[in-house]
Amino acid sequence: MLMTRIAEILRNGQPDTIVTIKGWVRTKREQKSFTFVEVTDGSSMNGLQAVINADLANYETEIKRLSTGASLEVTGKLVPSPGKGQRIEMQAESFTVYGESDPETYPLQKKRHSFEFLRDISHLRSRTNTLSAVFRVRNACSAAIHDFFQERGFLWVHTPILTASDCEGAGEMFTVTRFDLDNLPQQTGKVDYTQDFFGKPTYLTVSGQLEAEIMSMAFSDVYTFGPTFRAENSNTSRHLAEFWMVEPEMAFCDLKGDMDLAESFLKYVFKYVMEKCPDDMEFFNKRIDDSVLDTAENIINNEFARVTYTEAIDLLIKSNKKFEYPVEWGLDMQSEHERYLAEELFKKPTIVTNYPTEIKAFYMRLDDGEKTVSAMDVLAPKIGEIIGGSQREERLDVLERRLKEAHLDPAAYWWYLDLRRYGTVPHAGFGLGFERLVQFMTGMTNIRDVIPFPRTPLNVEF
Amino acid sequence: MLMTRIAEILRNGQPDTIVTIKGWVRTKREQKSFTFVEVTDGSSMNGLQAVINADLANYETEIKRLSTGASLEVTGKLVPSPGKGQRIEMQAESFTVYGESDPETYPLQKKRHSFEFLRDISHLRSRTNTLSAVFRVRNACSAAIHDFFQERGFLWVHTPILTASDCEGAGEMFTVTRFDLDNLPQQTGKVDYTQDFFGKPTYLTVSGQLEAEIMSMAFSDVYTFGPTFRAENSNTSRHLAEFWMVEPEMAFCDLKGDMDLAESFLKYVFKYVMEKCPDDMEFFNKRIDDSVLDTAENIINNEFARVTYTEAIDLLIKSNKKFEYPVEWGLDMQSEHERYLAEELFKKPTIVTNYPTEIKAFYMRLDDGEKTVSAMDVLAPKIGEIIGGSQREERLDVLERRLKEAHLDPAAYWWYLDLRRYGTVPHAGFGLGFERLVQFMTGMTNIRDVIPFPRTPLNVEF
Repeated sequence: MLMTRIAEILRNGQPDTIVTIKGWVRTKREQKSFTFVEVTDGSSMNGLQAVINADLANYETEIKRLSTGASLEVTGKLVPSPGKGQRIEMQAESFTVYGESDPETYPLQKKRHSFEFLRDISHLRSRTNTLSAVFRVRNACSAAIHDFFQERGFLWVHTPILTASDCEGAGEMFTVTRFDLDNLPQQTGKVDYTQDFFGKPTYLTVSGQLEAEIMSMAFSDVYTFGPTFRAENSNTSRHLAEFWMVEPEMAFCDLKGDMDLAESFLKYVFKYVMEKCPDDMEFFNKRIDDSVLDTAENIINNEFARVTYTEAIDLLIKSNKKFEYPVEWGLDMQSEHERYLAEELFKKPTIVTNYPTEIKAFYMRLDDGEKTVSAMDVLAPKIGEIIGGSQREERLDVLERRLKEAHLDPAAYWWYLDLRRYGTVPHAGFGLGFERLVQFMTGMTNIRDVIPFPRTPLNVEF
Repeated sequence: MLMTRIAEILRNGQPDTIVTIKGWVRTKREQKSFTFVEVTDGSSMNGLQAVINADLANYETEIKRLSTGASLEVTGKLVPSPGKGQRIEMQAESFTVYGESDPETYPLQKKRHSFEFLRDISHLRSRTNTLSAVFRVRNACSAAIHDFFQERGFLWVHTPILTASDCEGAGEMFTVTRFDLDNLPQQTGKVDYTQDFFGKPTYLTVSGQLEAEIMSMAFSDVYTFGPTFRAENSNTSRHLAEFWMVEPEMAFCDLKGDMDLAESFLKYVFKYVMEKCPDDMEFFNKRIDDSVLDTAENIINNEFARVTYTEAIDLLIKSNKKFEYPVEWGLDMQSEHERYLAEELFKKPTIVTNYPTEIKAFYMRLDDGEKTVSAMDVLAPKIGEIIGGSQREERLDVLERRLKEAHLDPAAYWWYLDLRRYGTVPHAGFGLGFERLVQFMTGMTNIRDVIPFPRTPLNVEF
């Protein structure tokens, strides 16, 4: 069988093998009696160099149709490459041009383009070195996540995107409707939702956690991996209106088990990506952020630091550093505090646990004394919080009280409370913003450059 | 290390090993000096039987707290089981009750419940035999899909859920907005979308295909696997407003390659599930539909039939069968025709190709003569169409013409046309409704019973 994928040829292709490749021209250099064409099919950072001799029958008419971005098929013999930085190249025996790419109008010229510019041509930007590396790494991360959980017997559960409930009472939700907004049915001056598709106000989910808890009470260990939404009007390099989230949930698990899972999870994913995409990771280290390889090593080889919130506050106070937000117990840690802990003090991922009850969500388990809850945040150097999790409140009476304290209506949570009514068990889980992970891994500074088609305020093109 | 997952113990547990299990009571039978408790943790169809002797210290007080649905932990020694149908059981040495489940109010009693009733308690129904088997099979299908594509070097691409475009001009879309519907900003009597979050009307996607094509023009082979939406007001056993879809897209691929992929894909997924979930599949065959094992064998072991639409119409006419919808060339085949072909005539999955241009979407490649397009549908016995795909129109001028003929505005498709402008290549792909696949595999008659939290008209609970 002919090998055709260029990644495979670059890795294992043997001299004298005849292969056919199909892809796009990355660069072309015409010489007197032949032309070098670097062909990429997106399977690897590097393309394969094809040497096309002028004595091929269609050379005269066809070679000039090839320019950056044009598509072609080349068949030829693999030969050791005399060029530097490449083990092997191809001596073309025939080639066919599929589609041209007019150099006068093709937006991707050989020069470097800004990421801002590339976002406006998101339909083409995956053809650039950087973005193609990002999306290969993104795919490897995704595959690693599924492998990690499936190997451990976790079930992937598809929690709903459309929901009538608001997981954290957080508010920032998009409304979903089948109404024609120019002709809303009204009832006593208000929109009559009973006439809408679902018969009540419906939103895009902000988290699959509550439904994952349902599934965990039947299958013990489950995880979600799907899109979630936040209608926050934040135009920052860290926010998307649509992003992917990973949320494992484990029955018979406490905060310690949750931390252990989060730590092995991150180590596994980094290791996997380093093994599958070494060239892409090298590229990021060289071109984007020269600390990404160190960071990966750091994650893979170090035990994460673990401190309670109370200890962390003490350490921040003892640091005598000047923070913009003054440090005192009860403070909702800001990025500056998180980064100090992970980057300067521990110099590695740091798990902070047992946060003040006041600043955390109603479903987190109350610790003895009730001043703190069994929550944990994993803080990563440079990124800050990358994982947030908790042991969940499994005691019916406590949960009911906590709902009321949070001014949420227990009746709306009837099914969530039922989980505590029938066969309740200690359980825990966490949430990971998938794009933050890809940012962290690649060193890309803007989150819009790690998702193929970013959705942010006023941006919904493609 | 202690084995704890019950599936693993049932499969490989050795007598005299001490293990701890954690789970929920499925049944309890009290005898004079001991109690049988069948414990399940959701990892397998069968639970593990624990024999709890009355001489255990907490027996008196705790055994009565155990009833169907209660949660517990049991440690004990594995012993060969004298009972029929089980290889091994556990002689308990200690047990702890986590949470009770009041038999007076617990909705899941030992008797059989209707699937309609269970849908109203979707937060508990995964604890029943049938639904737990469904979701284990659903997970195995999902894992198989990722493995299939990843092994073949396809990239998983996350296409957007929020979109301003309507892939097929199909219409049935949900609107997404950040507006307060009771206070819509207006401009000359119409809603002023420029003030909405995205600055224009925004919808939930009906397909990731067009964006998958973008990614395929950079990475050659990609696939999507994510939620899609259809705002159709259909209350049937085959329709969901929110469902998961799988859409591979391949560059340098024609209709033949597309069919080959679809066929190996289905074979792979069925084989994988038969290997991973044999007990669940047995269960479906015994309790739900006694043809599911035959169907799986049929898919795995037979080459799919392949006929053109024109041939299929001839065969339908020659059959002399009385169809509700009379057969003639140009007809959009109905379920009755599809089922006749796959169930009665070929008795196996059947791929119909080259449909009339009139009845298919604008992006499908025109065949020579332009009467037909390079489309294909895979028809499965009992289910009808399970996969729909096509070679895409890669010729810029033809595509522009087809858009206009479909009364779509080429300007709105500028980026889709750019893919044909710069390095266009023959490419093809297909779409598979994931829930239809799970239905097909398990024999479940209602699609609402193969997704954890179904969304249909007026149903958005949980």
